[in-house]
Amino acid sequence: MITVHHLNNSRSQRVLWMLEELGVPYEIKHYQRDPKTMLAPESLKKVHPLGKSPVITDGDLVVAESGAIIEYLAHTYGKDTMLPESGGQAWLDYTYWLHYAEGSLMPPLVMRLVFEKVKTSPMPFFIKPVAKGISDKTNEIFIGPMIKTHLDFVEGHLAKNTWFLGDKLSAADIQMSFPLEASVARGIVGRNRPHITGWVKRVHARPAYQKALEKGGDYDFA
Amino acid sequence: MITVHHLNNSRSQRVLWMLEELGVPYEIKHYQRDPKTMLAPESLKKVHPLGKSPVITDGDLVVAESGAIIEYLAHTYGKDTMLPESGGQAWLDYTYWLHYAEGSLMPPLVMRLVFEKVKTSPMPFFIKPVAKGISDKTNEIFIGPMIKTHLDFVEGHLAKNTWFLGDKLSAADIQMSFPLEASVARGIVGRNRPHITGWVKRVHARPAYQKALEKGGDYDFA
Repeated sequence: MITVHHLNNSRSQRVLWMLEELGVPYEIKHYQRDPKTMLAPESLKKVHPLGKSPVITDGDLVVAESGAIIEYLAHTYGKDTMLPESGGQAWLDYTYWLHYAEGSLMPPLVMRLVFEKVKTSPMPFFIKPVAKGISDKTNEIFIGPMIKTHLDFVEGHLAKNTWFLGDKLSAADIQMSFPLEASVARGIVGRNRPHITGWVKRVHARPAYQKALEKGGDYDFA
Repeated sequence: MITVHHLNNSRSQRVLWMLEELGVPYEIKHYQRDPKTMLAPESLKKVHPLGKSPVITDGDLVVAESGAIIEYLAHTYGKDTMLPESGGQAWLDYTYWLHYAEGSLMPPLVMRLVFEKVKTSPMPFFIKPVAKGISDKTNEIFIGPMIKTHLDFVEGHLAKNTWFLGDKLSAADIQMSFPLEASVARGIVGRNRPHITGWVKRVHARPAYQKALEKGGDYDFA
């Protein structure tokens, strides 16, 4: 039996979605973020030394890291449904998006969040404007343009494709869901990118996604 | 014929190393970072819309994103040498490290670099101490502990393994090389982590690595 060690408001929501799409039975062990630091609780370290979510167990196997979990589930339970045949262009595209989501798209989004945090952290009032200035400037000249380049690129791809690999949902969509739905929820993506918002709407409308949402609890990005 | 669109001091150095290990013929097209912004030149956008390195072309195929390039090369040219058999524990470990390198280990390292940049950017002298304070504090309470957790974890793994998958070099080592050699070169990893430094030394001693270094030009991390 698969156990998903699930943290609220986290990347592990997409693992629940994938399991629902695959129709594979699983159970959820819930973990809550520390309300002050927003970090995962210490108890997650008992499952995997990094103490991060998502992590799943399947019998004796422990699998961590979003991309690896999705690869594992696709190879073990989704060969006919969610995984393109090895070696062709579709496989190459699948591999690309699987790595792109966390390797290229997420880092500037997380960095943006950290600089927002710098701006809003408690600090002496005479320092606050400087912190805001530093944060805004970094966002303007460095992080913002990087995010724009990425979102333009993804928008262009989704203008020509219903799902990431074309007309059929695949594991690549599962992996891409977290950064894109977070971008929409945080207002980084709006009306100016109708194809990304359209894709997120299609994702959220899927019965399997809805079921995963019910089971997962607290999730701010859907 | 494979062409590597190679940027100096970048993630694409490991692609050259992999091709040398595989003994696959290739040519290099060199690109230089903008000396002021340190970003890749506009000309890279002609190869791939994101304009980032690494990107390779193999005949008509264009493959971007480190993890996807390594997957592509391993599947196409390295099945017997660099890729574990599909589905077993070794495959799972390979998949894990392949995603971990850019999905988990690199982001805090890049974030650290950005906050260092914040500290050293030209700014009015009365703002400088505040910028330094913000940067140091973020590093102390957030980025530093995250990097430590990751490096402890990798150190523990390499204390028990010569290469990432055990006693034989694999594509997982190629993918892990950039974050680890950058950590050593920047002094984040030192004598206190002998197994990471030992692994980096083993990597750098390989004839294929040396050959790639010669062909690649400018590279500060070896």
